[in-house]
Amino acid sequence: MKQVNPDTFHIDEVSSLEMVRMFNNEDKKVAFAVEKQLTAIAAAVDIISRAIKENGRVIYIGSGTGGKLAVADATECPPTFGVSDDTIAGIISGGSEALCGWREETEDDENLARQDLSIRKFSSRDILVGISASGNTPYVLAGIRYAKETGAQTIGICCSPEGRLNTLADLCITVDAGPEVIMGSTRLKAGTAQKMILNMLSSCAMIKLGKTYHNLMVDVRPINAKLKRRVIDIIKISTERPENEILAALDAAAGNTKEAILMLTLNIDVSQARRLLAKHEGYLKKAIKGDHNESDL
Amino acid sequence: MKQVNPDTFHIDEVSSLEMVRMFNNEDKKVAFAVEKQLTAIAAAVDIISRAIKENGRVIYIGSGTGGKLAVADATECPPTFGVSDDTIAGIISGGSEALCGWREETEDDENLARQDLSIRKFSSRDILVGISASGNTPYVLAGIRYAKETGAQTIGICCSPEGRLNTLADLCITVDAGPEVIMGSTRLKAGTAQKMILNMLSSCAMIKLGKTYHNLMVDVRPINAKLKRRVIDIIKISTERPENEILAALDAAAGNTKEAILMLTLNIDVSQARRLLAKHEGYLKKAIKGDHNESDL
Repeated sequence: MKQVNPDTFHIDEVSSLEMVRMFNNEDKKVAFAVEKQLTAIAAAVDIISRAIKENGRVIYIGSGTGGKLAVADATECPPTFGVSDDTIAGIISGGSEALCGWREETEDDENLARQDLSIRKFSSRDILVGISASGNTPYVLAGIRYAKETGAQTIGICCSPEGRLNTLADLCITVDAGPEVIMGSTRLKAGTAQKMILNMLSSCAMIKLGKTYHNLMVDVRPINAKLKRRVIDIIKISTERPENEILAALDAAAGNTKEAILMLTLNIDVSQARRLLAKHEGYLKKAIKGDHNESDL
Repeated sequence: MKQVNPDTFHIDEVSSLEMVRMFNNEDKKVAFAVEKQLTAIAAAVDIISRAIKENGRVIYIGSGTGGKLAVADATECPPTFGVSDDTIAGIISGGSEALCGWREETEDDENLARQDLSIRKFSSRDILVGISASGNTPYVLAGIRYAKETGAQTIGICCSPEGRLNTLADLCITVDAGPEVIMGSTRLKAGTAQKMILNMLSSCAMIKLGKTYHNLMVDVRPINAKLKRRVIDIIKISTERPENEILAALDAAAGNTKEAILMLTLNIDVSQARRLLAKHEGYLKKAIKGDHNESDL
């Protein structure tokens, strides 16, 4: 990762088209490098979804690009899956200043990591996911050590097999996508690999927790025009009913997508749908496929 | 993009490993979809680097994931390339609250886009880059319209050929990576495509502006241990001189990497290096390769 990339050594002398082609050639390698770590990623998904089910939180922690991507991924979850802001949270060294600008000097601050976790009352039932391209970011390593001291499980995401994160974290996802286009610029391929992995961790955990029905997001918050439209489309795909019936069901269910789908699929009313869904812990597919005793409805 | 992905329709019923494999199969498509737009991306690089050279600013604007990635890419530039915070800046609808959390409802707010640009005194010499996966985000479209009214050039990044951004922006980079793993979840492949494109726009513009020497970042700010080490490594690769000489040159040049490389390569002192670099407008390679008249030194 820190090597000089021989394929891009003369990038400062080529045309713009050749330049972007060099970037694209490197970018093509990322998903294939991530593929080699799918077993570890799947294991992380299991750890994370289990922890959330048992009321633990998932905390991502990173510095610079890793931190920015961590906060982005975590904060996408509440609007997409309807979970609380606490379920998956991201911490970046330097906080909001580092998000809105840059505070790269904080990546060396080990005490800050301990503080950032202790303020959030990080506990043994939580999971810490540390993100560090080099695997050696002092802030991230200190965070992992703190988490281990509390007895929590730790997961690493790193892009260099030599990084200390590999041996420190209980489970480490290590993607080596080769040297960057610009030497050491881990905001590029390493960042893209981190984004892909974070997207998988949060999305797959949410799928396992029943936040989708098939591949449809049935816990989305309809907080803008696009998402309001999406809810109607999702119910249409799920139930094949006309829009006026969908709107009536949504209205009766006070905007709850899962309840509306259940009402339309099983021809039941909203209170029956609510009870059935509660019985199946929010899993819509189980509620639809399960036995429907009189007593459930 | 808004279609249901037939390959992932039963993702809620498969093992975690199969689940992450479905994500990875989709992720593999992104860089290849971006490849089809390299000509447009190269054209955008030229527009952006020319504008910066003529003291214009580059403003990225987006909402939700597009905005988060825009701010991330922009704020990575000052530490990586030593440019001012103003050179490339990112705007997200909802500002810092949307970065640290989520304000997805702001994507419908057209007035907010005009306000956000007018506060920053957006002018005709600036470039606006609007990012919208659907190509229809009202906030982003309003921003592009405002920029066009000021007479500025506009660039779009979008992931749907049907989006209005395609015809509204002067130049639009449109990447269609096919339906998402979870229907409509544009934080996934669309977000990854946006990240790859933003990385190219900023990095290639910086390369064209002489912020690298070969593929080495010679304007990096040595603000943490990692970056301090990187500066020494970069000078070592560039000059093949021993570390004690490198440290002495860096010391004489008050930490300026380009001046240190020039001193060691041409065996000149710091004031000569500074003059030569100024003559070549900061382009290190030109300063090294150019004629070195007595009068320059």
